[in-house]
Amino acid sequence: MKKLVFIRHGQSHYNLENRFTGWKDVDLTDEGYNGAREAGSILKKHGFIFDIAHTSVLKRAIRTLWILLHEMDLMWIPIQKSWRLNERHYGSLQGMDKDEVIAKFGEEQVNEWRRSASVRPPDISPEEHFRDVSDPKYASIGKERIPLSESLLDTEERALVYWNEQIVPSLKHNQRVIISAHGNTLRALVKYLDNIPDDGVVSLNIPNSIPLVYELDDNLKPIRHYYLCQDGEIPHDSIPLHTDCDWMG
Amino acid sequence: MKKLVFIRHGQSHYNLENRFTGWKDVDLTDEGYNGAREAGSILKKHGFIFDIAHTSVLKRAIRTLWILLHEMDLMWIPIQKSWRLNERHYGSLQGMDKDEVIAKFGEEQVNEWRRSASVRPPDISPEEHFRDVSDPKYASIGKERIPLSESLLDTEERALVYWNEQIVPSLKHNQRVIISAHGNTLRALVKYLDNIPDDGVVSLNIPNSIPLVYELDDNLKPIRHYYLCQDGEIPHDSIPLHTDCDWMG
Repeated sequence: MKKLVFIRHGQSHYNLENRFTGWKDVDLTDEGYNGAREAGSILKKHGFIFDIAHTSVLKRAIRTLWILLHEMDLMWIPIQKSWRLNERHYGSLQGMDKDEVIAKFGEEQVNEWRRSASVRPPDISPEEHFRDVSDPKYASIGKERIPLSESLLDTEERALVYWNEQIVPSLKHNQRVIISAHGNTLRALVKYLDNIPDDGVVSLNIPNSIPLVYELDDNLKPIRHYYLCQDGEIPHDSIPLHTDCDWMG
Repeated sequence: MKKLVFIRHGQSHYNLENRFTGWKDVDLTDEGYNGAREAGSILKKHGFIFDIAHTSVLKRAIRTLWILLHEMDLMWIPIQKSWRLNERHYGSLQGMDKDEVIAKFGEEQVNEWRRSASVRPPDISPEEHFRDVSDPKYASIGKERIPLSESLLDTEERALVYWNEQIVPSLKHNQRVIISAHGNTLRALVKYLDNIPDDGVVSLNIPNSIPLVYELDDNLKPIRHYYLCQDGEIPHDSIPLHTDCDWMG
């Protein structure tokens, strides 16, 4: 039986300010730091050890992982970082206040971005896109492939490439894996593992800083999964998995 | 022209307490944190960017790197960690007060450990060795190859394996490389690059937290090197390279 742990980064400054984040590289708030510490302390208390960690190239996910590994005295394990685990690219919504977005585009339009797995928000501005294209952290993607905006399915597709190419081999080699990532990339992986249909995933919300443990069989099929808190396992039904309070991370 | 930056970790708790550290995995002091921050700020100010970082599996070197990369806004770059960049293994001296060591073994003996490149301190105790052997961070070494103690030449030998297998390919691929490591592993790499004889290296001391920049030609031969401070380059002669205040890190 293989164990895989997902952790969604702690609160970031944009989360706190109710702004769309996406590929904007904002750091954790103090609460975000505390959440990451708590997650590390929980995992340590329950005897978890990891052989390898995977994360995005965004500092809120890397920071969460670093703090968590410090707590677990596992700073030495290998960490692989990839843009494929980045949050969904929110196009021109990135950096905008969520209420302003509703005021500007109307509730119906926002609901469409929200409920549809395949609709993309408006493209990022050319100036902002140029910033992504010039950012050395995205040099490996290839300029023409850097997104201007992503639907949930776009995000899923590139996250699953990483799953198949990097995480599956880790698991097959019996490595104990932790993945520190974002609302939508974790959603994509959970959707894939649990065979959740497109219209089921938009209401799936993974809370910040709470370790989500998957037990997998040798074929990487989920046996069961649960959230882990200081007092032990919490069946996933007991956590508000189906809130939409934070539907776009 | 290729640039390579060495950074020796900031002050650790054992440095402060005047104790031999070696493979003891002690963390930085507040001064150590500040030194790492300062090093990152200096490198950023002078326009340095890195594509990859190499470090040991000891937290004082990893922590130094993490803080420095945070300062430079480069948390996203790949970091490779290896025991081969660890500090010299000091055998049974690890954890001992340096003055107590002189009182116990006599100045002559201590001078021999100090001046000779090939003499090993006494072996670590079986209990402590068992701890190293059971430590998952050393599982990749193979139990029988985990040292009981190392001479400076032993340390050099395993650090140069890493240089040839991992750092040379990084440099040949034109990656801008930073290495965060320890007094004796950095000494070994500098000795190799500058062709310093065995009896010249024991008095070579690389200060904590000051970036040491090597400019290399296409064959990785050094063109020049200097320390980097806030105000700019300092020729290596101006820094007390030849003190022995901290001869065993």
